Amino acid sequence: MASSDRVRSGVKGLDALIEGGFPKNSITLISGPPGTGKSLLCLQYLYCGAMHGEPGMYVTSEQSKEDLMSNAEKIGLDIKPLVDKEKIVIWQENLSTTEQAMVNEDSLMDAVRDEVRRIKAKRLAVDSLSSLINVFTLGHMGKDADSNTIEIGKIKLVPIVIDEQPIVRTIVWDIIDGLRKTGCTCLVTSELLQGQSGFSRDTISEFEADGVVMLEAETVGEEIHRSVRLVKMRSTAMRGGRYGLEISGKGLIVK
Amino acid sequence: MASSDRVRSGVKGLDALIEGGFPKNSITLISGPPGTGKSLLCLQYLYCGAMHGEPGMYVTSEQSKEDLMSNAEKIGLDIKPLVDKEKIVIWQENLSTTEQAMVNEDSLMDAVRDEVRRIKAKRLAVDSLSSLINVFTLGHMGKDADSNTIEIGKIKLVPIVIDEQPIVRTIVWDIIDGLRKTGCTCLVTSELLQGQSGFSRDTISEFEADGVVMLEAETVGEEIHRSVRLVKMRSTAMRGGRYGLEISGKGLIVK
Amino acid sequence: MASSDRVRSGVKGLDALIEGGFPKNSITLISGPPGTGKSLLCLQYLYCGAMHGEPGMYVTSEQSKEDLMSNAEKIGLDIKPLVDKEKIVIWQENLSTTEQAMVNEDSLMDAVRDEVRRIKAKRLAVDSLSSLINVFTLGHMGKDADSNTIEIGKIKLVPIVIDEQPIVRTIVWDIIDGLRKTGCTCLVTSELLQGQSGFSRDTISEFEADGVVMLEAETVGEEIHRSVRLVKMRSTAMRGGRYGLEISGKGLIVK
Amino acid sequence: MASSDRVRSGVKGLDALIEGGFPKNSITLISGPPGTGKSLLCLQYLYCGAMHGEPGMYVTSEQSKEDLMSNAEKIGLDIKPLVDKEKIVIWQENLSTTEQAMVNEDSLMDAVRDEVRRIKAKRLAVDSLSSLINVFTLGHMGKDADSNTIEIGKIKLVPIVIDEQPIVRTIVWDIIDGLRKTGCTCLVTSELLQGQSGFSRDTISEFEADGVVMLEAETVGEEIHRSVRLVKMRSTAMRGGRYGLEISGKGLIVK
Amino acid sequence: MASSDRVRSGVKGLDALIEGGFPKNSITLISGPPGTGKSLLCLQYLYCGAMHGEPGMYVTSEQSKEDLMSNAEKIGLDIKPLVDKEKIVIWQENLSTTEQAMVNEDSLMDAVRDEVRRIKAKRLAVDSLSSLINVFTLGHMGKDADSNTIEIGKIKLVPIVIDEQPIVRTIVWDIIDGLRKTGCTCLVTSELLQGQSGFSRDTISEFEADGVVMLEAETVGEEIHRSVRLVKMRSTAMRGGRYGLEISGKGLIVK
Amino acid sequence: MASSDRVRSGVKGLDALIEGGFPKNSITLISGPPGTGKSLLCLQYLYCGAMHGEPGMYVTSEQSKEDLMSNAEKIGLDIKPLVDKEKIVIWQENLSTTEQAMVNEDSLMDAVRDEVRRIKAKRLAVDSLSSLINVFTLGHMGKDADSNTIEIGKIKLVPIVIDEQPIVRTIVWDIIDGLRKTGCTCLVTSELLQGQSGFSRDTISEFEADGVVMLEAETVGEEIHRSVRLVKMRSTAMRGGRYGLEISGKGLIVK
Repeated sequence: MASSDRVRSGVKGLDALIEGGFPKNSITLISGPPGTGKSLLCLQYLYCGAMHGEPGMYVTSEQSKEDLMSNAEKIGLDIKPLVDKEKIVIWQENLSTTEQAMVNEDSLMDAVRDEVRRIKAKRLAVDSLSSLINVFTLGHMGKDADSNTIEIGKIKLVPIVIDEQPIVRTIVWDIIDGLRKTGCTCLVTSELLQGQSGFSRDTISEFEADGVVMLEAETVGEEIHRSVRLVKMRSTAMRGGRYGLEISGKGLIVK
Repeated sequence: MASSDRVRSGVKGLDALIEGGFPKNSITLISGPPGTGKSLLCLQYLYCGAMHGEPGMYVTSEQSKEDLMSNAEKIGLDIKPLVDKEKIVIWQENLSTTEQAMVNEDSLMDAVRDEVRRIKAKRLAVDSLSSLINVFTLGHMGKDADSNTIEIGKIKLVPIVIDEQPIVRTIVWDIIDGLRKTGCTCLVTSELLQGQSGFSRDTISEFEADGVVMLEAETVGEEIHRSVRLVKMRSTAMRGGRYGLEISGKGLIVK
Repeated sequence: MASSDRVRSGVKGLDALIEGGFPKNSITLISGPPGTGKSLLCLQYLYCGAMHGEPGMYVTSEQSKEDLMSNAEKIGLDIKPLVDKEKIVIWQENLSTTEQAMVNEDSLMDAVRDEVRRIKAKRLAVDSLSSLINVFTLGHMGKDADSNTIEIGKIKLVPIVIDEQPIVRTIVWDIIDGLRKTGCTCLVTSELLQGQSGFSRDTISEFEADGVVMLEAETVGEEIHRSVRLVKMRSTAMRGGRYGLEISGKGLIVK
Repeated sequence: MASSDRVRSGVKGLDALIEGGFPKNSITLISGPPGTGKSLLCLQYLYCGAMHGEPGMYVTSEQSKEDLMSNAEKIGLDIKPLVDKEKIVIWQENLSTTEQAMVNEDSLMDAVRDEVRRIKAKRLAVDSLSSLINVFTLGHMGKDADSNTIEIGKIKLVPIVIDEQPIVRTIVWDIIDGLRKTGCTCLVTSELLQGQSGFSRDTISEFEADGVVMLEAETVGEEIHRSVRLVKMRSTAMRGGRYGLEISGKGLIVK
Repeated sequence: MASSDRVRSGVKGLDALIEGGFPKNSITLISGPPGTGKSLLCLQYLYCGAMHGEPGMYVTSEQSKEDLMSNAEKIGLDIKPLVDKEKIVIWQENLSTTEQAMVNEDSLMDAVRDEVRRIKAKRLAVDSLSSLINVFTLGHMGKDADSNTIEIGKIKLVPIVIDEQPIVRTIVWDIIDGLRKTGCTCLVTSELLQGQSGFSRDTISEFEADGVVMLEAETVGEEIHRSVRLVKMRSTAMRGGRYGLEISGKGLIVK
Repeated sequence: MASSDRVRSGVKGLDALIEGGFPKNSITLISGPPGTGKSLLCLQYLYCGAMHGEPGMYVTSEQSKEDLMSNAEKIGLDIKPLVDKEKIVIWQENLSTTEQAMVNEDSLMDAVRDEVRRIKAKRLAVDSLSSLINVFTLGHMGKDADSNTIEIGKIKLVPIVIDEQPIVRTIVWDIIDGLRKTGCTCLVTSELLQGQSGFSRDTISEFEADGVVMLEAETVGEEIHRSVRLVKMRSTAMRGGRYGLEISGKGLIVK
């Protein structure tokens, strides 16, 4: 793969481990417990792109634009001018109760695609997949049931779906499908419970994404030891393993 | 971030680890098993504010005003005068069966906001998020179903929500959204089962809150070793790790 | 807190660790696996009170009055005269199938309160909270559903409550609320599965009670090592930790 | 307690650890994984009684009369003459599908009580509680729902019981209540999964029974190390701990 | 028990550990993870019988007759002539979707019994119990509900069975009952998940069967260490413990 | 078994461990966490066949044809000419929400069979079984319910299937049955959660497949140690155990 097919992460030390960057148009899962730097990695990734002429979009249901910008500045990313010039667009989906009935994964991904086109984004970050799955699960309860009704005489019955795994799989597919259609190279964060098995909260997206990068933090005495683990990267002769990670005033650095 | 943007915790030794205090307007999760001092930390936080001209409000569904005040005095916080002058308002929501059908997160947060305005509170403590989530879950069963009904012929059907995680996520969002709108800097406690994985009972709020502080207690022979663990603090160059904690007659002290 | 505000446990060695006794009017959870002495601790607590002019009431769904009295005598508590003079009243709720539909937590707590008034009880033991929660859960299924029905056209629908945790929380609140209104200082036992996480079977009451005392037993070869662990005691400068416990012919002794 | 109040187990070495025998009229849980000798312990207990003028009854849903008798003879219990003279009655409840709808715990316990009266039984063994609970659970689904229906307009609705624990508790109570009314001293077996926490399959009966005896087997190389663990015995100054157990041609022996 | 009452397993080294063979007419569970030789043990057992004048029947829902015969030949069992002469009958139940609605445990066991009579089988192998339980569970949903309906006014309601354990217990009983009525000495395989607790997938059959034999395989470097564990054998002075197992070109050998 | 009955895997070092290759017409499960090379192993297997005159088909719901071809080329498989000549056909089933209601396992397997016939495929890879099971589970809810309805008076009722295991078993059977009818030698991938017990996500297919091959990856410092574990291979004198695995520019190599 030519280096022109790689999209630099902007994280010092990381690109060297993955053939120069994420594969173009790929979708990489950034997974980790709270406080491990998932959002910061996404911000730095978009910042790197915007500084080199690739606009980026940040879709979040968690933090406000202001908080994200403040967080970015804390690690030395002068993000404000880029946001002002719409080289980076931060889009906070407010998914609290009142509005959520109106949102489903198709309409969200359509809206994202429109915005990507408008700003000619090449990079996209979704933070977090876990919360999107939660929101869309509620909406799916009805939709899936609808297509599986059975008729007994004149009565139509809706079977109850006991296991949510098939629904989650469907939602992950829809979101990934939507992301691919944007043409962007995407990062998607997943919440990981401390001590949980698997590489994502949903335990499905790590199989569906093209790449999986884990962020970890271990408390040893008064110190936090941060690390990044490269689990999977399709189309990449990846240098697997676990590497030290520093969150410094000059951004994230992989050591 | 200027130090004027930090809100001092009032806990000796803690502020030095988090750039002088909690970020203004942030929401920090205080999580821990029973008996680790979650309520005391909240009381000391409000006491500190009230002593320096920042009124505070304590919303609880657990303990009576009298008990909380007695607990505060036990660790040397002379809280009574402050409560008398309404520099600290303790609000016990009685959520036992009879009343609970009337309460939902929107109405509760509205009432809290009114009270915050009335006393011009700058600090807010909610104790505990876990019990609020339980109460609101019951109310949500109907509400969410309502917006997802499906029609088959003339019959409308309500799909059953099997997995409560999406509902809990929604409730956490609504509460956090309501807290942000108060303009206060907030502490929110979460119950953590001894030996449970994750950083909260609900396993979601640790991702949604701006900060996560864990209180821990370990029994070693006849001694209890208390500690505080700094897990996450957005917009903060946090000194992570685990530090000794003492609950003394002069309040909580981080060592 | 003046010593007049403490209620002596009657267990040698225990009071010294908790400022002279349980806080007056508090509710303490006594939690442990089978055979660790939960009932005996309650009996000794009531015995201590009755011997010093404080009548007590023992509410149980488990053991008969005769068995409890026999158990008490085995550890040297001459309980019969006190029961005869109604200084200790043992109340066995027979909650087997036939009657249980009639009982709910409100009616039970009302009846308990009446009896407390009649005998002027100052001390109360409930053994076990776990079985009360089980009984009341069945009754709650209908009640909670009732208040959350949703209307669709002319049809009212009852959402199904999938997660029993909110219901258990409500029941715990109702029982604790009822206990507080008796004005007694209360002990409440909880079953703890061998190897279970948390400090009670329901994993909620340890957060709602004012104090938590764990009874433990470990088999080492042919010996049982018994211990008592002080987990939490509000309004108390508790000497936390784990202490040896002996069940002797002279009652329970903390070493 | 006078020795006349103790009922000898017939197991060499065991009675010495529990003040000479099980407390008269008590109900003791015999719990263990498959192949640990639960049925044999029950048989030896009944054999011991029958040899000393105390008739006994064995209620089982598992093994045929012929198999049980063959098993008993294998460990040197000459049980046939006692069965012939109705000093021991083995009652196999055939609970396979066809009949089960007719059986509930009340009717079963009534029938057991009639038989106990007829043969003047003083000892009773139920093998296993776990299978009885399974059978009765199916029957309870309807019964409990019946008493908790709620009315909405003209429609009566049956709430769904999601958590089976309250139902299991009710069944355990009913069975224990029925056993007490027989006036016998009872052993009740419970299945325990290898590696399961708690002391019974249902995790409730160990709290409701008067005594708990665990049978354990550990494979060390080509050897099985058997042991008996005394967990709890009400009204007994029990020598707790774990003791070696041998299943020999002369019956079970505790070492 | 006379040696004429034992049925030789045909596995070198095994019979010596269990008094010469399985007890006549007994039902032994052969449990283990995939690839541990459960099917091979059954084949060798039937082969041994057929070579000594005892016809046998193999009921499977998993593998084709051809595959089983090929597997047998791989370990040196010249099974073809025996199958040709109907000394061994391999019966593959095709239980895929289309047919499964027609099958229930009663009709299956009836058909098995007819075939046993026709070929005068003395030995029977069922592979696997786990898959039969799965198939029959679907059929039971309706059947059990039918017998537990409750009437409220004119409406009959079907309670939902939330816990599948009682249904599994019923199915296990029905199958074991059916097997006993064949008069054969039976082996029944159960799937065991790697790392699962208990001795069968269903966690019930190990208590209901007369014997339990575990097959285990442990990977140590490039080697697989196979072993057989004797857990339980009613009516047998079993030499318990774990023994080496070899799957050789001359069949299974216990060392 | 003659070597003509073995189908070479194309993975250097692997065939020597399994008598020269997979048994003809067998179905082997390739199981592992994300990033362990399951798809690559399938590609190499098809590549090996196509290079030796055996056309192959790759059915996937995960990755696009383009991505798979790029992945293959990364490990040195010059796959494009083979795809162009239809010696390898890559078939991506798009199973996102819109279409999924139309697909069930029967129609999918029929379509696969038609394609196999058209290109005269001898080898088949399905990637992944886990996602197919998820998709088909949704469709089964109605189908299975249909065949188990019960009649009460004039009302037909559909029992709810609480446990999804019987449904998963049925789906696995249908897929395996369909694969056998293709006449191909098949590889089927299964997702395995990091730290999960069992050998597949569904915990059933490892018992139903003829062979089970596990791919594993362990992070040791900055290194990934890859290995392949041979768990089971019917009709094969398999050299069991765990072997090193390298993913190199010349394909997968077992060491």
